[in-house]
Order: sequence, then structure tokens, then C-alpha cells
Amino acid sequence: MDKKDMEREFYMTGGDGKTSYARNSSLQKKASDTAKHITLETLQQLYKETRPKSLGIADLGCSSGPNTLSTITDFIKTVQVAHHREIPIQPLPEFSIFLNDLPGNDFNFIFKSLPDFHIELKRDNNNGDCPSVFIAAYPGSFYGRLFPENTIHFVYASHSLHWLSKVPTALYDEQGKSINKGCVSICSLSSEAVSKAYCSQFKEDFSIFLRCRSKEMVSAGRMVLIILGREGPDHVDRGNSFFWELLSRSIADLVAQGETEEEKLDSYDMHFYAPSADEIEGEVDKEGSFELERLEMLEVKKDKGNTEGDISYGKAVAKTVRAVQESMLVQHFGEKILDKLFDTYCRMVDDELAKEDIRPITFVVVLRKKL
Amino acid sequence: MDKKDMEREFYMTGGDGKTSYARNSSLQKKASDTAKHITLETLQQLYKETRPKSLGIADLGCSSGPNTLSTITDFIKTVQVAHHREIPIQPLPEFSIFLNDLPGNDFNFIFKSLPDFHIELKRDNNNGDCPSVFIAAYPGSFYGRLFPENTIHFVYASHSLHWLSKVPTALYDEQGKSINKGCVSICSLSSEAVSKAYCSQFKEDFSIFLRCRSKEMVSAGRMVLIILGREGPDHVDRGNSFFWELLSRSIADLVAQGETEEEKLDSYDMHFYAPSADEIEGEVDKEGSFELERLEMLEVKKDKGNTEGDISYGKAVAKTVRAVQESMLVQHFGEKILDKLFDTYCRMVDDELAKEDIRPITFVVVLRKKL
Repeated sequence: MDKKDMEREFYMTGGDGKTSYARNSSLQKKASDTAKHITLETLQQLYKETRPKSLGIADLGCSSGPNTLSTITDFIKTVQVAHHREIPIQPLPEFSIFLNDLPGNDFNFIFKSLPDFHIELKRDNNNGDCPSVFIAAYPGSFYGRLFPENTIHFVYASHSLHWLSKVPTALYDEQGKSINKGCVSICSLSSEAVSKAYCSQFKEDFSIFLRCRSKEMVSAGRMVLIILGREGPDHVDRGNSFFWELLSRSIADLVAQGETEEEKLDSYDMHFYAPSADEIEGEVDKEGSFELERLEMLEVKKDKGNTEGDISYGKAVAKTVRAVQESMLVQHFGEKILDKLFDTYCRMVDDELAKEDIRPITFVVVLRKKL
Repeated sequence: MDKKDMEREFYMTGGDGKTSYARNSSLQKKASDTAKHITLETLQQLYKETRPKSLGIADLGCSSGPNTLSTITDFIKTVQVAHHREIPIQPLPEFSIFLNDLPGNDFNFIFKSLPDFHIELKRDNNNGDCPSVFIAAYPGSFYGRLFPENTIHFVYASHSLHWLSKVPTALYDEQGKSINKGCVSICSLSSEAVSKAYCSQFKEDFSIFLRCRSKEMVSAGRMVLIILGREGPDHVDRGNSFFWELLSRSIADLVAQGETEEEKLDSYDMHFYAPSADEIEGEVDKEGSFELERLEMLEVKKDKGNTEGDISYGKAVAKTVRAVQESMLVQHFGEKILDKLFDTYCRMVDDELAKEDIRPITFVVVLRKKL
């Protein structure tokens, strides 16, 4: 699947139904919340330094759910606080909010909450000093140009950049067959060629990402990137990669039961990569437009007793993985196997967690556009 | 229904199904096509005068159909021609395209064609001197601010401004009952108070529209407004108002057959007004930010033998009216009556046309932002 197809066919499950991303992104929200103080500190710092009359904020990979607009509300409030502390006698800046995701994202769902968003904004400001907020959607791949030159002050990309622009071409042999049989991503069965292919794709994509943003951002502009990653150089660990290992095993289970074909599993490859801190830092240095201000590793705490609210951790992971992978899985395997697949998957995650901890880690990366 | 409700509940029928606006807006397209030379001349003139590096173009009330992106393609090509004629050695400007409609509009449907739009753009330019085009959706009512200050060079609003921000409050008596019983808009039964209420609402709305745009547009920026209107001071004629007269009669027909209640018809009021040239000009002068460069009256020709393609004129009008009014009619009358209603309506239009011509007119208004 090439980049153009990815633009058409990859999206978080839309709407607000039972399996929607809107209702199944609590794990992402938790990670973003853990990183929130860094995000908001960075935004305040940026505002102090640049004090623009019109502040351009982009959310790349905004998806479609309660997280989307609540993030924007946090940003606005934070800037208001910084403004009142720094330059209270001047009028508030205008806010230009640029929401971005692939064209298949359910933007209609976000738009329908906009009238309420504006009502709440007014109410929160006691109908008084209410800032002008202009919200726009810019659909497209962030591995290409999205915005006019010099328009963006702050870029926020949460849980976006571990999605590659495409499955690496090097993953296919001369006959077009996947060389990563039995696995949906890098897993314990994968050869070194597989991890090399994924790693190269990440480097190429991330570098293009930085180059595009550097054109769109103003000097001293900041980016906060929240990326699923891995702790060390090993590609296979009991972190994020382990969740895909278990997804591969769950599909293999269905193959064993005759619910789907082995060939289907062999030919299913995800466009996902969890980079290491060194890989991220290396690309930032090489591309050269940004300074690395901060790179922190977060480990999102599991709720007590390994449950998330009323459900088991396995269930929470299963719901999340389903919401982010459903669009691709349905195209490849058909809709029929999904319920069973994720029942199996949920059980496997819980069983594994009972044996030994699973520790998916998340990086928070703060970049500053050089002058 | 107030302005906020209108934002939520009024939209052209989405998607590309049988009754969608996408497939039932050929009459609007015809009018816009008739006005196209004026639109494109104005855009060229603007480009010659301002020659911006980044050109902001807004389509207000862009709706969701084949007209939406084909209009944008026309704009880009026109500017390219003007550019190559005027300043061929300089690089092409960046295009910032701002698509606007109410939040209920089916923006997802537009976004899904964006990957193809960009592929065609490249192909049309032989992959050579292809301009950067950034397409964004800004959902919201154009009777309020939509964009940051000083960002827009060219505003295009086709078939948008005859939709008022709300049904005029003055249309309801102290008990909240409509004073325009038996009619869905100004019709032959309506009292003078009714036309006065609608006219005042138009003036208030249009004036707010001009004030908001004047903040958002650069000096010498241009607006092209394509508005359904009426020829003289009389509110009731055999023009646009006659189509609503016939819609009222069609609903009355269903009431007579017991398909819906008289009270439902009495309480259904549209937020539509067809202004006269004098009313438009008067508000432009009064608001003061824009110069009226052009105001032309168009009469869209009916196809030979009063048919549109393979269908009768009545059928074409019925399909169009259904696509633009369905969202409101369904909320008020329920979905059940729609097919029958528009069968009746189609017949009435054809019968009336056989008796005497119906001449809906359209204004093309060109405004220039004062320096």
C-alpha cells in the first residue's frame, strides 16, 4: 500500500459508536495527560518568546474524539494565562487552530461539536474577554506540506509519528511477497532485514516531516511530539512491539481454527515503528532545522490491579488497538473475524500481563525551530 | 429556530446518494457557470492588482459536491494564466483555499476526493510548475467571523446569501405562533408584516456579513456573490418566490389528503430571502467597507422544451429544492411525506410552467474592499 492509498484507507474508527476511536482512546489520553505539563510549559514558553498577534497552532493526527477539542481548550487557556502574566494590557491574540489528519478521518464528527465548543469558550470567559478562535481542518498526510509558509507557531502531534507513511517497500521480495511472514510488525520471528526496512522508513519519513514543518513554522516555533517508542536498540521487547507480537499470535490462532487463511496473516504488514531515543535524536540533528530542547521517556501507569476503570488492562488495550487498526484489518481480513480476534487478543494480553509486566514506553520530544 | 440551532440543523443533503446535494445541484451549477466569466475576470483583476505570494481564497457556503472542488480548480487555473501573463519569471503564489459551510455540511465527502484532486492538479501541470495548494475547511456561520484578520484576498459565495441566519423573530406573535400561516416563505397570502420581517432580517444579516468579511479581507480584495434575487420591489412574483409558493401549495395538498397537519404547515417557516438589487446596493453603501464594482442580473436559461437533460424542468427544480430543504423538512414534518411531497411539487411546477413562464433571477455582485 503506497502513500496515496494510505491517505485514503487509514483512519481511526469514526463516529461515537461502541468501537469508535472517540470512545476507545483512553490509553492515548492517559499518555498525553502524563505529558501535558511538558506540552503546556512549552506552549507558554513559546508565547513568552514570540508574543504574536495571531497564534497558529497545529494538531497533527488530531483524530476524531473528545481528546481533539479538549486539547484545543487546554491550549487556549494556557496561552490566556501566559498572556495575562506577560502582557495583560494588550489584547489577547487571535487563535488559528489547524486540525490535521488523513482525509479518511471523521472530521464531520468534530465539526458537529464546534457550536458547543464556542458556547463553552464564551461561558468559561464569562462572556468577557473571550479570544477569537478560528478552527480549521487541513486534511492530508503530514509526510508532505500541509500549511502555507511561516504560519505555524506551535505543532502538537500526539500518537501520530509512529505511523509511517507506508509499509516499507523493502519488506517485499521480488515477487511482491512479504518477507515478514507470520508477523504484522517487527516481532520475535522477524529477520534483521525486516527491522532494517522499518527503521529506514521511519528515518526517511521523520526527516521529511521535519523538513516540511520547518517551512511552515516561524522561527522559535515549537513542536511537541508524543511518540510510542522503545527503550533500547533491541527491536523486540516487552514494550510496544509486544502488543503487535500478540496481535500476530491472535491472528495465528484464528488461522489454526480455520477462521482465516495463513496467507492472509503472512501478507498483512503494519505501517508502524517504535523508534528509540537515539534514532529520533539522530534524525533531528541530521535534518538540522530544529534544536532538541527536551526528550523524555514516559511510562504510562496502569491502574491499580491492572484494570482500566471497570475493565481489564487487556480489554483496554484490545479496544484501543481495534480502534486504531480496524480500518486496515477490515480491508484485509474482512469484518467477520474482528470480534473473535479481539476477544482472543484481550485474553492474551491479560494472560501475559499475569506472567510478567508489559512496559510500553512513550517519548515526549520538544523541538525548537532554529532562528 | 435561532442562529446556533441553524448552525446545527441546516445543511445540504450530504454524501452522493440519490437525493444528495452532490447529485442535485445542477441548477445552481448552471447559474454559477453563467456567472463564471465575471467570477474569473474579477479574480484575475485582483491578482493583477495585489500579486500576493500567498493567495487566500474563501468559498463561503461551499456545500459538498462536484461543484466544490471543480470551482477551486477553475480558480487556480485562472490565477496561473494571470500569473504567466503578468509576472512569469516569479514563482507561482501559494494558494490557501478556505472552504466554509455550516458545521452540518458533509465535509468528509469533500475530503475524500482530495487525494485525487492533488493528483489531477499535478497531471494538469505535467508534473512541472505545479502550485502549492493548501485546502482547509472552516466550518461555521458566515454571519460571524470565520478567519483571522487580513488573510483573504478573494471571497466567493455562490447560492449562500439568500439563506438568512435565522427565521426572523418578528415572524412570531406573542404566543410564539407564526404570523405567516399557510406559507413557508413570503407568498401571495402573506401580510406586509411578513415581508417586512424578512427584509429586515436580510438587511441585518447582510450588513453583519460585510462587516465580518471586511476584517478578514485585505485591501483591494474582491468578493463575488451569487444570490437568488427578485427583479423589482414586489416580494411576490413569478420568480424565486413562486417556487416557495408552490412548495406551500404542495404541503397544503398533503394537508388536504390528511398526510400531515395544517398546524405543521402553519408553523413551518423558511430562512430564505430573495433581495432586490436596490436592497443589496443599499446595504453595501450603508456598511461602507466595500465598493460595488458590478451588479448584474442573470436569468438562467431553461434547456430547450423546458427539460433539464432527460428530466422535466419541474423534476429538476423538485430535486434541487429537496436537496437544499430536506434537512429542515425532515425535522419538521418527518421523513415519511417527502417522496409524495416532491412528486406533487414536481407536477405543480410543470403545470404552472405550461401555463406561463417562471423566471427566477440571480444576481452577481462584485465588491471591492476599500483601501
